[in-house]
Amino acid sequence: MTDVANGVLAVTPRTRLRRLPERGVFDRAAIYRILDEAFICHVAFVVEGQPFAMPTGYARLGDALYFHGSAASRMVRQLSAGLEVCCTVTLLDGLVLARSAFHHSVNYRSVVVLGTAHLVEGREEKLAALRGFTDHVVPGRWAEVRPITDQELKGTSVLRLPIEEASAKVRTGPPKDDDEDLAWPVWAGVVPLVTSPGAPVPDGPMPPGVTAFDGARLGRRYLQSPAATNPAQ
Amino acid sequence: MTDVANGVLAVTPRTRLRRLPERGVFDRAAIYRILDEAFICHVAFVVEGQPFAMPTGYARLGDALYFHGSAASRMVRQLSAGLEVCCTVTLLDGLVLARSAFHHSVNYRSVVVLGTAHLVEGREEKLAALRGFTDHVVPGRWAEVRPITDQELKGTSVLRLPIEEASAKVRTGPPKDDDEDLAWPVWAGVVPLVTSPGAPVPDGPMPPGVTAFDGARLGRRYLQSPAATNPAQ
Repeated sequence: MTDVANGVLAVTPRTRLRRLPERGVFDRAAIYRILDEAFICHVAFVVEGQPFAMPTGYARLGDALYFHGSAASRMVRQLSAGLEVCCTVTLLDGLVLARSAFHHSVNYRSVVVLGTAHLVEGREEKLAALRGFTDHVVPGRWAEVRPITDQELKGTSVLRLPIEEASAKVRTGPPKDDDEDLAWPVWAGVVPLVTSPGAPVPDGPMPPGVTAFDGARLGRRYLQSPAATNPAQ
Repeated sequence: MTDVANGVLAVTPRTRLRRLPERGVFDRAAIYRILDEAFICHVAFVVEGQPFAMPTGYARLGDALYFHGSAASRMVRQLSAGLEVCCTVTLLDGLVLARSAFHHSVNYRSVVVLGTAHLVEGREEKLAALRGFTDHVVPGRWAEVRPITDQELKGTSVLRLPIEEASAKVRTGPPKDDDEDLAWPVWAGVVPLVTSPGAPVPDGPMPPGVTAFDGARLGRRYLQSPAATNPAQ
């Protein structure tokens, strides 16, 4: 496993875009940037013919995606040789308001990772994944909190999904209206969407010496303020 | 179909929560509030044994969820008697930072709707769904933009999913640390997450008389500013 994201993933019949193929991205580095910016995925899996999509936290370590087994708990308990999943990550960047209803859209970046997920059995790999879940959201958090106990470690199931069959889909820029609609008397353009941290709410009084949480620790994805938004062109 | 949300949905073996059942919500009105606040869902479906989860816009009209058929296009083209789906909607409300890694969590509201989706064939119902997609994001938008043409209507596929088997899952409030960890010297609490509109970016010069887009039109879900956040207790 390496942290260097090189190369371009092969397009498979399952990741080839049937619709708007110009939005497809198969470059590993571009895919990893999206995976590293978001922190909630939706995991799809099948139980007795019924698909489920469950939201859960995740982390990318090298060329694998790790997610909480609890998200797929219905399945994990009957899991033997692996679980067919689709992990989807979606970042919403803006509302695209066109002159016609038909051309309304959203600017977004999404990644789909397909494959077989396996329960992580090795202690070191499981610890690395759990540290990844925590530090992916708040860098450095794992080192400062009460360490995980053996019992907690046993009580947590983690799945690993290799990033081998994956693609990203990206839309940026203004609405694409038909020429004959450009004079339609309505505002058209992009309304950027920004997610930012609110004022941290402490859980009661903190022990002496503990300082307030600094929202800047969350990293660049939450640091934007609406005024500072620079929408994609 | 009615817009009055009454009653409590039956808990089925597929919607019963196996884990943390106290987070389960089966009240139709509470489920509809979440569905009406978010505007992107992840639709899970199965193609040749492989699950997919695809992000797409949606609208709730009465006791049905409507979403773009393009999200399930791989499936729609081979669709005859309906498509088994799971539509999942997730709103992230905050990061829950505990004293121990194990008790880290997020505050969220999510809804899962299970069932069989069908292509909408009737013109009026399809128009209502498309209007729902648009007005769900920007109330009143449908009436001010260039109307949809018959050709555009034909080129758009819409699926309807009855809201009969559904549940919500909600976490609010502070971290739930073990008593013996309360003196651990680290900040613990909730960091609210807020999504807000940035400054609208017009698509070139607007025709005379067209005023700037007012972000307040997006409704209460985007009106929060980080400073105004009042996290759930």
